[in-house]
Amino acid sequence: MSLNHKLYAYLHEEILPLESAYLHVSDLSIQRGYGIFDFFKTHNGQPLFLEDYLNRFYASASLMGLEVPLPEDELVSTITRLIQMNGLADSGMKMILTGGYSENGYNPGPPNLIMIEQPLTLPSEVQVTTGIKVITHEYVRELAAAKTINYTVGVRLIQQVKAKGAEDVLYHQNGVVSEFPRSNFFLVKEDNTIITPVHEILKGITRKNVLELAGKKYRVEEETVTLEDIAQAKEAFMTSTTKRILPIVAVDGNPVGNGKPGAVTLQLLKDLVALEGRQVSL
Amino acid sequence: MSLNHKLYAYLHEEILPLESAYLHVSDLSIQRGYGIFDFFKTHNGQPLFLEDYLNRFYASASLMGLEVPLPEDELVSTITRLIQMNGLADSGMKMILTGGYSENGYNPGPPNLIMIEQPLTLPSEVQVTTGIKVITHEYVRELAAAKTINYTVGVRLIQQVKAKGAEDVLYHQNGVVSEFPRSNFFLVKEDNTIITPVHEILKGITRKNVLELAGKKYRVEEETVTLEDIAQAKEAFMTSTTKRILPIVAVDGNPVGNGKPGAVTLQLLKDLVALEGRQVSL
Repeated sequence: MSLNHKLYAYLHEEILPLESAYLHVSDLSIQRGYGIFDFFKTHNGQPLFLEDYLNRFYASASLMGLEVPLPEDELVSTITRLIQMNGLADSGMKMILTGGYSENGYNPGPPNLIMIEQPLTLPSEVQVTTGIKVITHEYVRELAAAKTINYTVGVRLIQQVKAKGAEDVLYHQNGVVSEFPRSNFFLVKEDNTIITPVHEILKGITRKNVLELAGKKYRVEEETVTLEDIAQAKEAFMTSTTKRILPIVAVDGNPVGNGKPGAVTLQLLKDLVALEGRQVSL
Repeated sequence: MSLNHKLYAYLHEEILPLESAYLHVSDLSIQRGYGIFDFFKTHNGQPLFLEDYLNRFYASASLMGLEVPLPEDELVSTITRLIQMNGLADSGMKMILTGGYSENGYNPGPPNLIMIEQPLTLPSEVQVTTGIKVITHEYVRELAAAKTINYTVGVRLIQQVKAKGAEDVLYHQNGVVSEFPRSNFFLVKEDNTIITPVHEILKGITRKNVLELAGKKYRVEEETVTLEDIAQAKEAFMTSTTKRILPIVAVDGNPVGNGKPGAVTLQLLKDLVALEGRQVSL
C-alpha cells in the first residue's frame, strides 16, 4: 500500500497509523477467507452516497452472520474523523469486517473491523475515450448478494486477463451474464434500451445511480443478459465506484457495436459525474 | 487459539511466539480471501505422511499462481525445528500461504508463509461409537482441486448445521455428492463395495490412505455418488486428517443403513490407526 503520505486507519477500536495496522494470524480472514467489506469514495473530504454504502455493508454482514461492532452513528463519526486526519482530497475508504480471532481456526469470534482510506485513482482520460477490452469466464460468485472478501476466482484470473490483452473478466453461466469481479455490466441495445443483469450479482451503488439517471432519458430493463445479447448490442459499459462508467469496446476479441465508446455510454458518464458533483456540493 | 502452552509459529522468515504472529491488513487474505493452506498431524514429534501433504501444498500454490517462498528441504527443516521448539506430543501443523502484501488491495505481492502448530484433538470415543449426523447443502467448491482458504459457505453454514442437530454438512450439486467442507465422503454398499466421489473434491491424504487400505479387503470404486446412493447404502463415513474415519449414521434426518456405525467402517478405522502407528515407528 502507498505509504508516501502518512495515513491513518481504524482497527481494534482505535485510529492508528496504517503501517501499524496488523491482524493476528488466527483471524478468520487469514484462516478461512471469511469476511465482508465495502468501499466508497470521498471528494474534497465528503463521502459520496455514504448511506447506500453503509446500508449494503450492514446487509452483507448480516447475510454472513457477522455483527458490525459499531452502530451506524459511531461508524459515521469514525469515518469523519479518519477523513479529517488523513486530509486526502479524493480518496477511497474500505471497511472490512472479518470473522474475527478464531479459537479453533474455523468458528468465528467477535468480528474485527478495519477501515483503510487511501488516495483514489479514477480511470484515465485514455481509458474513457478508447474504452477497454474484456474476456469472459464461466463462474457465478458464491452468495452474490453479499460483498464478501472471496475473490479466489477473480484474483486467480489476473494473469490470464493480461495475457489476452484485456483489462477485466466478465462472468457468465451457460451464456447468462452476471457481473465483473468488481463491477456491474450494462448493454445499450440498437433501440437505445439500456439493460443490465439482475440475478447472481452484487447490486452496485453506481449501478443504482446509473439506472436512475438512464431512466430519465432511455428505456431501462433489469433483465437476463446473454452473451448473444452482447453480440447484438450497440454499446456496452461497466460501472463501479472507482471506475464510474467505463466503455467496453470488445468482448473475447469481438468488437461491441462499432468497436468504439458509444454516445449513450459517454452521455451517461457525463450525467454521473454531474450527479456526483451535486452530492458533494450539497 | 489456545495459548496456555507457549507455542511458536513461523512467519516472515523467522520462528516467533504464536502470540506475536501478525499480518499487515494489506495482506491479500484479509483484502480478498486469497490464499492456500495445508494441514498435517504429528505423533510423538513425528509428522505423518508428510511427503503427501507437502506435495499437495506445492500443488495448491501452483494452481493459484502462488510461489512457496521456501524450497521443500528448507520447509521440512523449518517444520522439524518448530516441532522441536513446541514439544507437543500430538499436534496439527497448519501451513498457510497468502497472496502477500498487496500494493492496491487486489494484485498479489510476494506470498506470506505462515506455519502454526497446535495441540491436536482427535474425535472422542463417543463420536466414533455413536457416529455423527450430517445435513446436505447444494454447493460445489470453487477450484475444488486446490486447498484454498475459501470457506465462505462452510463457515456461514455452521449455525444452520447446529440448529439441525447435525455435526457437518455434505455438499452436492443436483443430487451428485462431492465432499464436506473439510472431509471426504465414503459409502459402503450392501455388497461391501466401498465407493467415494472423485470429481469436484479435494483429494484428501486420509482418503488416499483409506482407499489403499480398503482395496486390500473390499472392492473399491472412485465414482459418482448420489443422494439416492446414500439412501441405499449400508454404511457411510467421512475421512480427514483430524477425524481419521468417523461413522455417519444419519443424513438429513434419515438413518444410513441401520442407523449405527457399521462393521466395515470400524474395521477400516482400526486399519487406519494401525497404518498411522507404523508410520511413526519407522
